[in-house]
Amino acid sequence: MTTDAPTFRRKRVVIVGAGFAGLWAARSLRRAPVDITLIDRRNHHLFQPLLYQVATAGLAPTQIATPIRAIVRRQKNVEVLMAEVTGVDADFNEVILGEQRVGYDYLVLATGARHAYFGHDEWEPFAPGLKTLEDATALRARILLAFERAEVEPDPAERARLMTFVLIGGGPTGVEMAGAIAELAKKALARNYRHIDPGASRIVLVEAGPRLLAQFPKDLSESARKALEKLGVEVRLGAAVTSCDADGVSMGDVRLESRCVIWAAGVQSSPAARWLNAPQDRAGRALVGADLRTDCHDNVFIVGDCALVSGKGGKPVPGLASVAKQEGKHAGRAILSMLNGQPIEPFAYTNYGELATVGRKAAVADFHGLHLKGFIGWLVWSLAHIYFLIGFRNRIAVALDWTWSYLTFERGARLITGEAAGLSVRKHARSEAATDRAAE
Amino acid sequence: MTTDAPTFRRKRVVIVGAGFAGLWAARSLRRAPVDITLIDRRNHHLFQPLLYQVATAGLAPTQIATPIRAIVRRQKNVEVLMAEVTGVDADFNEVILGEQRVGYDYLVLATGARHAYFGHDEWEPFAPGLKTLEDATALRARILLAFERAEVEPDPAERARLMTFVLIGGGPTGVEMAGAIAELAKKALARNYRHIDPGASRIVLVEAGPRLLAQFPKDLSESARKALEKLGVEVRLGAAVTSCDADGVSMGDVRLESRCVIWAAGVQSSPAARWLNAPQDRAGRALVGADLRTDCHDNVFIVGDCALVSGKGGKPVPGLASVAKQEGKHAGRAILSMLNGQPIEPFAYTNYGELATVGRKAAVADFHGLHLKGFIGWLVWSLAHIYFLIGFRNRIAVALDWTWSYLTFERGARLITGEAAGLSVRKHARSEAATDRAAE
Repeated sequence: MTTDAPTFRRKRVVIVGAGFAGLWAARSLRRAPVDITLIDRRNHHLFQPLLYQVATAGLAPTQIATPIRAIVRRQKNVEVLMAEVTGVDADFNEVILGEQRVGYDYLVLATGARHAYFGHDEWEPFAPGLKTLEDATALRARILLAFERAEVEPDPAERARLMTFVLIGGGPTGVEMAGAIAELAKKALARNYRHIDPGASRIVLVEAGPRLLAQFPKDLSESARKALEKLGVEVRLGAAVTSCDADGVSMGDVRLESRCVIWAAGVQSSPAARWLNAPQDRAGRALVGADLRTDCHDNVFIVGDCALVSGKGGKPVPGLASVAKQEGKHAGRAILSMLNGQPIEPFAYTNYGELATVGRKAAVADFHGLHLKGFIGWLVWSLAHIYFLIGFRNRIAVALDWTWSYLTFERGARLITGEAAGLSVRKHARSEAATDRAAE
Repeated sequence: MTTDAPTFRRKRVVIVGAGFAGLWAARSLRRAPVDITLIDRRNHHLFQPLLYQVATAGLAPTQIATPIRAIVRRQKNVEVLMAEVTGVDADFNEVILGEQRVGYDYLVLATGARHAYFGHDEWEPFAPGLKTLEDATALRARILLAFERAEVEPDPAERARLMTFVLIGGGPTGVEMAGAIAELAKKALARNYRHIDPGASRIVLVEAGPRLLAQFPKDLSESARKALEKLGVEVRLGAAVTSCDADGVSMGDVRLESRCVIWAAGVQSSPAARWLNAPQDRAGRALVGADLRTDCHDNVFIVGDCALVSGKGGKPVPGLASVAKQEGKHAGRAILSMLNGQPIEPFAYTNYGELATVGRKAAVADFHGLHLKGFIGWLVWSLAHIYFLIGFRNRIAVALDWTWSYLTFERGARLITGEAAGLSVRKHARSEAATDRAAE
């Protein structure tokens, strides 16, 4: 593989991150005379909008993840590198991978974001968040184990704690998780237990602001709240969490006892801005101009959830998959323009609409003032998500799974695996037979 | 849930293990006037015959596992307990779960087996085996990471080591894994890499005995060997492994350098016999009579892979799913006979035939002297496995996945997840760009 140093070398574009922004950047350069190195620490692209369905046993991890290599297999000018980037040396035009370095002529940083605890990182073990497949399968095990433990728990107070689920954050993730847990408990787990009724679970959605889905129009926020309440979810607005511990959460004087608290309240950007010493906002996002670059580095583009771009009227564009795709595509085209000595067009975000689902037959959608809700909203949501899923095969598999779940209320992915499976219910193990003997 | 002590108590049957034997024991008691406690340390029943397909990225874990509670949901006399059994106190008729105990009137032990290293447990980290879903996803990550590392490895000797896969053991698991890895490398991964050709991987199947699939008739062993060799698998017979380490395996003077050695050579029973102080064979299986009981305990049945039952002519019955089901069913019926004061019928194993697959369009099947091979054998194998998969939904999902793979050669489950994902290829990270600069 070691070849003689070439006398002519094509320009190298390094793209860090194979999420929506990174993949679309690579795709937009498919006919460009460049060599692309696409670096990601995982071997798969993740369809994050459906991650909550893995966490609630609706879909399998393989259904929302596709190997990056398989996606770009036919794009000959891309090589994929599975490695973790630890920094950027912009003076030498190099990306740092631990002790190794990869040189670039153009760099696209699309490293995304993780959930954040606003200075309360000590809450993480008690209120895990949801960004990776491992997060999702760990949450799935946590939710399912709560029911296993409740089934064998003699103390009613502890049983109630085990059957209380608290979602912190009323954005799309919190709303979707709350609805999905309610449906899991009330439908899919029905008749599965002998000592508890999963349908009697308490599911609480806590939001610090005055309404759910703040980025949606007010009437749709209200529809989402009503749909959740119809599913039996308790919605608490204007309630800011002040502490999290192993037994539950507190919001000032109000206390919710729960063994399963889930964090859906905030995100923190990956350190792309820090790598470049670029100006950033409080969430760590790099402040980039309409050309998707910072002032310091002409050949570095920052796109997706690790960048903060202003849209119309100076309002930041939202952190959505469709935005990330548009930004990635724009960065690719900007590189093409630079190669051809042409000026870079300013990025303009096209809003195709926003969607959030509450559960079976209920979703909200906003298309430029056209507000859809209920069953119609849900149909549009389902079709849109199937359409955008990468890979023909996954589209079919997900469509079939959803049809199946819709018809039967079943969930196909109720597995407790991984480390969490070691959290056996043994300590709490109890059965009627054991009680019989104790009473003798 | 705490009720007054009942004046009349139905007999309690405790079943430990929800594999094929345990589930079929529970099912055969579905109309019996007993209370059944089905204990398993996992929340899911695993369709082990297809586990190798999860390890080779063909199927998702959820497709071959079903929640135990969902399976017995409608059988009202069963309660499911997710807990780990640590022993049996046969004098007091109690199963021990750590500090807790569950009393029984009848006990069915169906705790299965794990892979074993014949006194060489130190080989396990270098040659992992395949018994649980976690084993399978860890193996999947190990196999896929080997290619990721080879892609960025500059040293040809190390690259060859990374692209060599050694399967130890020529039974059904070894044969099926070897065929599946060959197909993965030569078909599904084709065109996915830029610096290596996965099709040039070396796959070696090592068997100590004189032929593959020793329990099959000789002509079918020969067919399997030929089919594997056609797929490019090197088959080495009469080769006993004498040492395993991080760099490969030795068989006497012969050395195979490999970073991915997989153990498929032997099983060790779970400690059911030891719990009862019952006589056992070398693999730890309890020696039971035709009534599936040991001499010591009239109300304890041992079934499945943790028991050794003699068939016709004193030959032990094989460790197959169909045998486990028959034994479980028989134990259930024997308990019914005891309840009714009737004698227990002796267990008689009905041989429905044996199947093993080598890969796409190649399998061997033996039905009482009717030997099938090649495409016909594969069709029979596919239909049989889909038929026996628990759960209508999983049957459809697997059938569709196989049809898809058959038509496209693709694999749908190529994910590197879990702890193994931390085994990043970073240390080996290298790209042409990095070399370029080094050469400058």
